[in-house]
Amino acid sequence: MTDLICGRIHKIRNLGGIIFVDLFMGYEEQTIVCRKDLLPREDFLSIKKLRKGDFIQLYCNSNSEAVDLDKYIHPNNNSFISDNQSLLVINYSNLLKKIRKWLNNHSFIEVRLPSIHFGKTSGHVFNVDFFGLNSRLSSSGSLYLNVFASHLVKVFSLQKCFRAEPSKTSRHLAEYDLLELAMLGSDMNDIMQLLENMIYDIWTEVKGDENTIKDHKSDIPLPFPKVNYKDIAVRYGILGMGLGKYERKISKDCPIFITDFPIKIASWSAKPIDESYSRSFNLLLPQVGEVAEGNQKQTNVDLLKRKFEILGLMSQLGWYCKGLNCSGIDLSGFGLGVDRLAMWLFGVKNIRNLNPFYRDQSFSEINR
Amino acid sequence: MTDLICGRIHKIRNLGGIIFVDLFMGYEEQTIVCRKDLLPREDFLSIKKLRKGDFIQLYCNSNSEAVDLDKYIHPNNNSFISDNQSLLVINYSNLLKKIRKWLNNHSFIEVRLPSIHFGKTSGHVFNVDFFGLNSRLSSSGSLYLNVFASHLVKVFSLQKCFRAEPSKTSRHLAEYDLLELAMLGSDMNDIMQLLENMIYDIWTEVKGDENTIKDHKSDIPLPFPKVNYKDIAVRYGILGMGLGKYERKISKDCPIFITDFPIKIASWSAKPIDESYSRSFNLLLPQVGEVAEGNQKQTNVDLLKRKFEILGLMSQLGWYCKGLNCSGIDLSGFGLGVDRLAMWLFGVKNIRNLNPFYRDQSFSEINR
Repeated sequence: MTDLICGRIHKIRNLGGIIFVDLFMGYEEQTIVCRKDLLPREDFLSIKKLRKGDFIQLYCNSNSEAVDLDKYIHPNNNSFISDNQSLLVINYSNLLKKIRKWLNNHSFIEVRLPSIHFGKTSGHVFNVDFFGLNSRLSSSGSLYLNVFASHLVKVFSLQKCFRAEPSKTSRHLAEYDLLELAMLGSDMNDIMQLLENMIYDIWTEVKGDENTIKDHKSDIPLPFPKVNYKDIAVRYGILGMGLGKYERKISKDCPIFITDFPIKIASWSAKPIDESYSRSFNLLLPQVGEVAEGNQKQTNVDLLKRKFEILGLMSQLGWYCKGLNCSGIDLSGFGLGVDRLAMWLFGVKNIRNLNPFYRDQSFSEINR
Repeated sequence: MTDLICGRIHKIRNLGGIIFVDLFMGYEEQTIVCRKDLLPREDFLSIKKLRKGDFIQLYCNSNSEAVDLDKYIHPNNNSFISDNQSLLVINYSNLLKKIRKWLNNHSFIEVRLPSIHFGKTSGHVFNVDFFGLNSRLSSSGSLYLNVFASHLVKVFSLQKCFRAEPSKTSRHLAEYDLLELAMLGSDMNDIMQLLENMIYDIWTEVKGDENTIKDHKSDIPLPFPKVNYKDIAVRYGILGMGLGKYERKISKDCPIFITDFPIKIASWSAKPIDESYSRSFNLLLPQVGEVAEGNQKQTNVDLLKRKFEILGLMSQLGWYCKGLNCSGIDLSGFGLGVDRLAMWLFGVKNIRNLNPFYRDQSFSEINR
């Protein structure tokens, strides 16, 4: 019995009467043995001329020995996706698997959040013509996720989000993968602990992978340091403002939590501590800066209603008050940029390198 | 040592001096034993009054026996997400896991396709204002996937796609989960076989799940029947047209493949058989109709270039010719609507029931 095997050549070793061809087929790698005495003469001669990157299709016996060369091509040399980028794509795909596995092992249910949201905001969003209704692409679905959490307790979503980012930097994209997580019955410390555990476990796993690009030499300290926003903002003279360009300076040596941001610059969905500050946090990573933003939610539905009424947002957000079926119960969550996590894990300097078809302020594949 | 446990009550059984509380926490279910002799009197009395759906937070010892009731609430009765819908959300989440696991076991690499595409089309798409450039939301990323496949051999993507669907039916949504798969070195028969195997394996697994909503009594025949488009179109008097309302009639009894659609109604990316027909197929499911559409790709880059030049599409699609690094090699793939697959697997009559936050021609949560 023979099998038709096809794949891309990863490595080829010619030992004279025998040629070993390592084929790459998706996640699989297989070594095909090409023996002069088993193959037609012209097939063996053709195989001798093959090189890394060539595509080959051949019939093999059950010992993975080639018995017939079906076809082969030398693709053009200007590969659209470089070998290094292929490896990054595979690394990223593995990272998504690790994240989902970790969350699954911790009983989190993956839910689907809508990508098209009703109404306008003042943020940097992409407007969509949705059957003539005012709408925009989601830059975060945390309100939907909170409603799911108030019913299903432990939930997450890992999907594309969108931001009409006006700045062109090595850390911003218009389309990005956002992991959002929410958990009922947890306060801000619980959720920071969960995030720390997840980051540490995934970092440890990636560190042990032989196919990972980056060589992680040093360890990261546990627990991650926690610094109060006010302390750090006073030190840098930016009280009341975002951390901006200081992010990477602050997180130079290790992952670090910044906690209790001013209400004015935190999400409106966060629970206040007092009149000025809220139960909110950022997680910063070395080289990358902000990777996650989280908070403990305001779950007092009467307060939320009053807020929406004052702001004239009841028609747009009234459903959140109805859906949040856990008035007064602790509920916390975070959103984590998976592309940025990957930058840190794989030592990638420019976020664009993670995906050959990225979106910044233009289309990466056009005019290439 | 005590643990703080929190969750939603799934079931509560009062045996007098002892109450068993089954808690639901994400995927986890845990039974908490509430003994009169271990709890403060007022805590035990409070627990006696709890009912299904209530949220509870309590301290337990290592035997899962409650020692202190921290807090509890009775949420309002008009739950935003019904128990039945919660179960469907969990079933759907499990389905996504099964699909990814199957594809992973078959060496497919998950890749990310862009959601915002350049240029206009005549299809039912949502237009986006992308930094002032003509663009639209993706209704399929198969061209990107083909380029990935030409480099990585076996790839898939499972992400949100969008269609400005003008018809309001029980089987159409404006946002839907699309599984797209492409494989280098495979012809149309190979990819149909792969799809059949995947559907059958997942159906078998779902059938064995105790928590699945639908009770699958009958078996499905293997192999799935294959009918030529021309034969079926002649029978129904719809030659040259789509299957439309006949889809569910054709697939009444079992999953069925329809093959070799006319070039005029198949994807332009399909390889022609002759001047009229192409190597394309649909998979139809009972009650649901079309669940997947696939084809063998045209990989002759010279022919593609000529086509784009004639249609004036080189500036918009020229990258595809550069990216498709496998000229002349077999390449096939399909796109499968996961929501529709779930309808069949779980016996769901209306596609809207799968997600409390669905999008049809309006926003499901607004004005609820």
